[in-house]
Parts: sequence; C-alpha cells; structure tokens
Amino acid sequence: MVGGGATWGERLAAAAAAHRSLLCVGLDPDPARLPSPLRGVEVEEAVVRFNAGIVEATADLACAYKPNLGFYLGLGLPGLRALERTRRLLPAGTPAILDAKIGDVASTATAYARGVFDALGFDAVTLNPYLGEDALAPFLGRPDRGLFIVCKTSNPGAGQFQDLPLAGAGEPEPLFRAVARRSAAWAATYPATVGLVVGATWPDDLAAIRRLCPEQPILLPGVGAQAGDLERSVRAGLDARSGGLLVNASRAILYAGDGADWAERARESALQLRDAIEAARARGD
Amino acid sequence: MVGGGATWGERLAAAAAAHRSLLCVGLDPDPARLPSPLRGVEVEEAVVRFNAGIVEATADLACAYKPNLGFYLGLGLPGLRALERTRRLLPAGTPAILDAKIGDVASTATAYARGVFDALGFDAVTLNPYLGEDALAPFLGRPDRGLFIVCKTSNPGAGQFQDLPLAGAGEPEPLFRAVARRSAAWAATYPATVGLVVGATWPDDLAAIRRLCPEQPILLPGVGAQAGDLERSVRAGLDARSGGLLVNASRAILYAGDGADWAERARESALQLRDAIEAARARGD
Repeated sequence: MVGGGATWGERLAAAAAAHRSLLCVGLDPDPARLPSPLRGVEVEEAVVRFNAGIVEATADLACAYKPNLGFYLGLGLPGLRALERTRRLLPAGTPAILDAKIGDVASTATAYARGVFDALGFDAVTLNPYLGEDALAPFLGRPDRGLFIVCKTSNPGAGQFQDLPLAGAGEPEPLFRAVARRSAAWAATYPATVGLVVGATWPDDLAAIRRLCPEQPILLPGVGAQAGDLERSVRAGLDARSGGLLVNASRAILYAGDGADWAERARESALQLRDAIEAARARGD
Repeated sequence: MVGGGATWGERLAAAAAAHRSLLCVGLDPDPARLPSPLRGVEVEEAVVRFNAGIVEATADLACAYKPNLGFYLGLGLPGLRALERTRRLLPAGTPAILDAKIGDVASTATAYARGVFDALGFDAVTLNPYLGEDALAPFLGRPDRGLFIVCKTSNPGAGQFQDLPLAGAGEPEPLFRAVARRSAAWAATYPATVGLVVGATWPDDLAAIRRLCPEQPILLPGVGAQAGDLERSVRAGLDARSGGLLVNASRAILYAGDGADWAERARESALQLRDAIEAARARGD
C-alpha cells in the first residue's frame, strides 16, 4: 500500500503515477486456457503459478490488480485457496481489487466486508447497487477502502434494466444515471472512496457518467482490441486531472501466449496496452 | 435430491410435501453468536459442527437449506472450507440453495455456475438481475437447477432503486415489477426453474409479484417474530396450488438458544415456525 494515511483514491493515484499507468490487470484464470507448461499441474497450484507469473511480468506496468471471485469460486475450494494465495503475492504498493459485485442486506454485507477487507486483505471491491444504500453502508463506512459501484456494465445486454427510462419531471433518464447520481452523493458523505464500474462498450454513457461524477474513480472493463474504442473510452473516462480511471484488461493479457514464453507475451501485451492508454491520455490533455 | 428426472421446482414441491413444510433454514453462521459449547473451537470446525447440529435438529422440518456465501467468505479461507463441508452434510432429499446474489458478465457467470452447481454441488442459487439476461444465461440454461432472481429485497432501503418508477405508456410501474415480468418470460423460455426473492417486509409488493409470476417459486426472507406479518406474507406468496413458496429463517432458528441445549432450542424454533406457516397456509386455502 502506498501512503498508509492517504485515502484509497490517493493511493490509487500514487500507484498510477509511480507506474505511469492506468492499466488494471484482471486476474481471471481459466484452467482450459492456461499455457502449455502449466497444463497437467494440479489446479490450485497451476492457478497460483500462473498468477505469480503474470504479476511478476506486469508489476511495473499495472496500477492495480483485480481478481474476479467468479473464476476462483468456479473451481471450488482449490480455486478459493488459490485466490487467498494470489492475494498474498500481489505487490504491496499496487491496489488489490476483488471483483465480486456484492449486493446483500446489511448483516450479510457486514460479513462480506470483513471477509474481503480483513480476512482476505483486499483494499477495494466491486458492489452491485440494486439493494440500495443501507446494503452498501458496511462497505461505505470503511475509511481508506475503495469501492466500485456497478453502474453501466460492458455486456451486450447491459441496457435491459440499466437503460430503463425513469419517470419524473423533465426528460426521462435511464436507471444507470440514477445510480451514478446516488454514488456521487455517497462519495461526498462516506469515508470510503466511491468509484464506479462503467463498460468501455458504451463511450457516450461513460462520458455522461463522468459529467455526473467528476471526482470518482472509474473502473473500465470491456476494452476490445480496437485502439479506436480504447482512445474514445479513455478520453471520455478521465477526470479533470487526467486520472481517476482504471482500464481493466484480463484475457488480452493473460492469454497473449500459450507456450513457454507466456509470461513474456503477457508482458508485451500489457506494455502495449499501457502505452496505448498513456498515448490516449496525452492526446486528451 | 428427490426425483432425479424432475425439474427443480418439482423436486422442491416433493421435499415440501414430504416434510409438510415451506420452511427454508438459512445457514448463516456468525462466530460471535455461536452457542457456548462451540466458543473457543477453531472457527472452521466450530461452524461445521454448528451447521451439522442445526441440520440434524431440523432435517424433518426444512423444505430447503440456504447457506449465504457472505457469512463464509466473511471468515476467509476457513469459512470457505466450512461452506464446502457444510454442503456435503446437507441431506440428499432436501434442496440446497447457495445465497450468493451473483450478477456478472457471461464469461464470469459461466465460471460461477460451474462452481456453484458442479464444484460445490448446490442445486439452486440466488442471482442479481442488474446486468440483464445475457449475464444470467449461463444459469438459466441449466436444466434441473433452481434460480431465484432478486426482485424486491427485505432491507429497509430496498426501494431506493427497486421502487423507482419507470416511464412508459400508462401508469408508471416500479423497477422491481419490470424485473418480475422479465423473470416470468425467462421461466417460460429457459430450462432452469426461475424463482424470485421477495422480502416478507413488503406484503403488498409480494402480492403484486405473485400476480405477475403465478407459477414461479418465491423465496421469502425477512420474516419477523410477528405472526401477523408471517400470515399475511404466506397468504400473499402462495401459488394457486398452495405451494411455490420458501419462507426463509436464519437467525431466529440458529440463535434460539446459546447454551448446551442450542440444537433443541433451534428445533423448537423451527417447529414453531414450520407450524405457523402451515397454519397460515391452511387458512389461505
């Protein structure tokens, strides 16, 4: 952790500055896609070695690491053991985000917060807003921790509920904008750093959310191979200080190679993406 | 499992008939509230022994068991080991639901589904609808499995987003009703049994949801100590065949006693609640 007394947002900014990077590396191991040297290895051990190799190869290029709980729970107990070991091998100066999209009533949320932050030692987490503020309060009340409220997701059908127009005075606005507005109010009143998850697949919505939430970190999944999308998303997502954005990539880095040179190939892919983000950021200034 | 070839809804109905019960026992262990004989025991072992005692005491009274992932993840890896062991001690004829309120993009949802259903061996799960149908599809496509879509939750602030009125032709309807309508369409088109989570704290909304979703199982958390609430919720939640409802209770059963007789006290509490539900069900006929 960079600067123990700082807010999570400040620690994130420090890591981003230190590595000149807005790249968040998603650690989402899929046993079927592990590189050939790790095939046949017992799954817990294979996942830990894979993650260790990816982290070593990208340590100076990442502003954050983000394991997604689903890929570990998906492997049952061996996967969950691998998650716990993965957390322990993440570098101390780089924020560690658990992507779990948690949303449950307060007593359960209290247990989750204790598990994610204290037992497992992550310093940020993704949350689902559907249950409302009282369900998020056990996370919101944690000083020095980072939250990312799921607002507009990257999947093709994200709009099914997130884009539903709300009735009210004036022009109807979609649900995700109400979520963004609320998150700005939470950011202003709670100790945690309250960010948002916004898919890179919806650059216009991203720009609208950035206008509603000028000060909040945005976690941006769904960056494709197309540099155009990346450029547009990065420029729409940056805050006024040209920061406050984490561009997540998982598969494009993790599975860049599947032979003996998999870690080097992952590094090349991460470097290319880090630099493409920095270039877009420089042009946005 | 009762009747391997049946749908999950049919297996649930069979368990409910066999135990003459709509009671779902929530296995949400809180180490700070464990009974005195289990204090000082190492946490994984304490949780497993506690759950084993609760299950043994209620096996003939429960139509389902429902551990909530948050209470296990909240204890870190020892808790997750306890969850895996807890699943293995649940009786074969009684449906096992993992309450995890999962909502993530399709590739992650595919991993979650594999973990929940195959690796951990649960036969039903709770899901969050915010990401939309394509994010739920990996669960919806599973024949013989049960899903409960979070629709209107039991927490005090549930309405912050769930009650937001949607614009459209005619009277604005709240978001949770759009979720209920969609779930009915999914129930009609996908192989899984698609139920809903509706809090007992909103009996009018429960009645409205039952009208929109006449055929779907409803999981009902938030039953208080008040028999009036219970009676009203049960009658509003039953389907046309006087079934299709799981009344969840966790703390009221788990922590009914905290001395040497904790398991007997849990049984008494479960029996009382089971019978109160059956009485309300009989009066509703």
